Amino acid sequence: MTHIALPASLHDLPTPCLVLDGARMARNIDRLRDRLAQRGVPLRPHLKTGKSIEVARRMMTTPEGPATVSTMEEARRFAAAGVSDIVYAVGITPAKLPDVLALRAQGVDLAILLDSVEQAVAVAEVSRAAGMAIPALIEIDCDGHRSGVQPGDRDRLCAIATALTQGGQLRGVLTHAGDSYGAQGEEALRAAAEAERLAVVTAAQNLRDGGFACPAVSVGSTPTALSAVDLTGVTEVRAGVFVFFDLVMAGIGICSHAEIALSVLATVIGHQEDKGWILVDAGWMALSRDRGTASQAVDQGYGLVCDLSGRPFGDLIVAQANQEHGVLALRAGSSESLPSLAIGDRVRIFPNHACATAAQHDRYHVVQAGSDVQAIWPRFGGW
Amino acid sequence: MTHIALPASLHDLPTPCLVLDGARMARNIDRLRDRLAQRGVPLRPHLKTGKSIEVARRMMTTPEGPATVSTMEEARRFAAAGVSDIVYAVGITPAKLPDVLALRAQGVDLAILLDSVEQAVAVAEVSRAAGMAIPALIEIDCDGHRSGVQPGDRDRLCAIATALTQGGQLRGVLTHAGDSYGAQGEEALRAAAEAERLAVVTAAQNLRDGGFACPAVSVGSTPTALSAVDLTGVTEVRAGVFVFFDLVMAGIGICSHAEIALSVLATVIGHQEDKGWILVDAGWMALSRDRGTASQAVDQGYGLVCDLSGRPFGDLIVAQANQEHGVLALRAGSSESLPSLAIGDRVRIFPNHACATAAQHDRYHVVQAGSDVQAIWPRFGGW
Repeated sequence: MTHIALPASLHDLPTPCLVLDGARMARNIDRLRDRLAQRGVPLRPHLKTGKSIEVARRMMTTPEGPATVSTMEEARRFAAAGVSDIVYAVGITPAKLPDVLALRAQGVDLAILLDSVEQAVAVAEVSRAAGMAIPALIEIDCDGHRSGVQPGDRDRLCAIATALTQGGQLRGVLTHAGDSYGAQGEEALRAAAEAERLAVVTAAQNLRDGGFACPAVSVGSTPTALSAVDLTGVTEVRAGVFVFFDLVMAGIGICSHAEIALSVLATVIGHQEDKGWILVDAGWMALSRDRGTASQAVDQGYGLVCDLSGRPFGDLIVAQANQEHGVLALRAGSSESLPSLAIGDRVRIFPNHACATAAQHDRYHVVQAGSDVQAIWPRFGGW
Repeated sequence: MTHIALPASLHDLPTPCLVLDGARMARNIDRLRDRLAQRGVPLRPHLKTGKSIEVARRMMTTPEGPATVSTMEEARRFAAAGVSDIVYAVGITPAKLPDVLALRAQGVDLAILLDSVEQAVAVAEVSRAAGMAIPALIEIDCDGHRSGVQPGDRDRLCAIATALTQGGQLRGVLTHAGDSYGAQGEEALRAAAEAERLAVVTAAQNLRDGGFACPAVSVGSTPTALSAVDLTGVTEVRAGVFVFFDLVMAGIGICSHAEIALSVLATVIGHQEDKGWILVDAGWMALSRDRGTASQAVDQGYGLVCDLSGRPFGDLIVAQANQEHGVLALRAGSSESLPSLAIGDRVRIFPNHACATAAQHDRYHVVQAGSDVQAIWPRFGGW
């Protein structure tokens, strides 16, 4: 990649590239922090959206955490940068336990997630063999969207806890209201948040009734974290995408376009005038293949097109994407006219899903309100 | 990322990760090479699928090329590895011309692509200022799928050629039958190939009639390259995804499942028995969000699930994907029963689109027929 010497600006950065509006990000972080502070519940931010220590430090309450990660690579990278209170929130496999032990031996309080007796037995065995009790949370299924134990299944919860505590340690329960990404409007979002809370509080109570301590009661997703009214019984909230926001979040009503902090900078490379197309050099490689708004009321294609200040043109979206080509066109039925964009002109494109789009890039170009790049923050991928 | 010491095997690699069957890849390369050799037309492989010098060297006729790339980063990386005959096959913007000049000054014969007088004027100006004629191909639109000049639009072709040759150099014409990815069956594929050939041969004739030399007449896409019967007038064929193949290519009938060389290795992390779900640690981050088979006769979800030898289980697909979770389930309407896969068991997943899935990873774990990893080949991304 071409070396970028600062100062640079959105007018001269090689395209396509990732632009992060630092002022919007800071406001997004304050918004969730203030909301949770009012309810007296700490935030354990999910670092999988940013995958950047610079972003992580701004999301976390302290340089040591707490934090949530989705890969062992995130755990290792953030631990190397001083984060020492981490939950790896994807169901564990026995083959990953040696890496967990290695991080714990370095002084990192890394907790893991599981939802079966089989996993609990493996964790207890490895813990005993290492003489080091690995702490685990039991994953609770609050909405049927993927993994987890039913909150009312006391037998299974207690069987997992029993197996786990033969060497390992029960840290608590955790759930993620993944279905809230499909909710829409304040009422539906509040209901999803309450269902999430109720699931995990019920599971914790079942474990306590069975004689197990259940210190951590963890919920989280961006839509529910920003919608929950009552968090009684919850000890921490996890959320990730709130830091950048995106078109999916705007589509369910949890943020406005003016709060979306992430965009892809692209340059016009051509036109097909008879079709009303403007071609740019950002295709799905730069935007990702995510089509999360396809099932929403307003389909944003592969992204909503903005001017260099981050203001949408209106109905101009990335209607189609090839690997390195984006086809800009007006949304079907639009009465607007195509903006006048010549070859070499630049646009910013809001992503459907910030986690997916950011993952296509290895760095953030950080701007504040203007077009001057004030910092370049590296990001990483891998497992 | 965890350091992998060879020897390793599919049984102990950290998951998710990318597996490349080197024997299948070699057969795929031979297949296209033999086909083009019979027709006497050279191959200019597209290196955007592999983004790896190890893969590139096996695809190219010589270590110096010829080659096609989709980003300036590919041009720079492959040039640094000794490739000196390169076409950058995405419409050029003026801001990228200094990088083109820099590579040409290093002795790389880098040619660019354009489809407007505006671009041609910019290329000619920059060429004159640098005292170095940049060679450009005119992009031809053979099927309306994105950019390019209509093959019969002699006025526009000659206007571009006239502007270009005021300092730049006309290398020829180039087209890509992108719509062939939506073709199905031998007849439709042959028709797409003939339409692609005819478009570019017609455009070349129009330029020659206008008094311009048009040495390069370049066509290419994997489906058409493997289907073309007649290549009269064509001087080179470009193709990329043929090197790995994928489920989209299998869906249009251009390859069999037994020819797909790329897969994602994943580990079982849980079950939701009442739903018939098996959870694995490969979500869309490892598989990509590409849903290219969604519009085909057989929808493969986010991928087709295979055993460790690369043989599909049958109707088991990745029905849903979150960032780091894949939900395996039988295809709707299947009469098969769910294979018995315990926590810790491993599967390989064929991708919908090899270019998109490979782009989510930074290395290939190369196996031959068996499960021993014989090499690790790095790959790169970025622009």
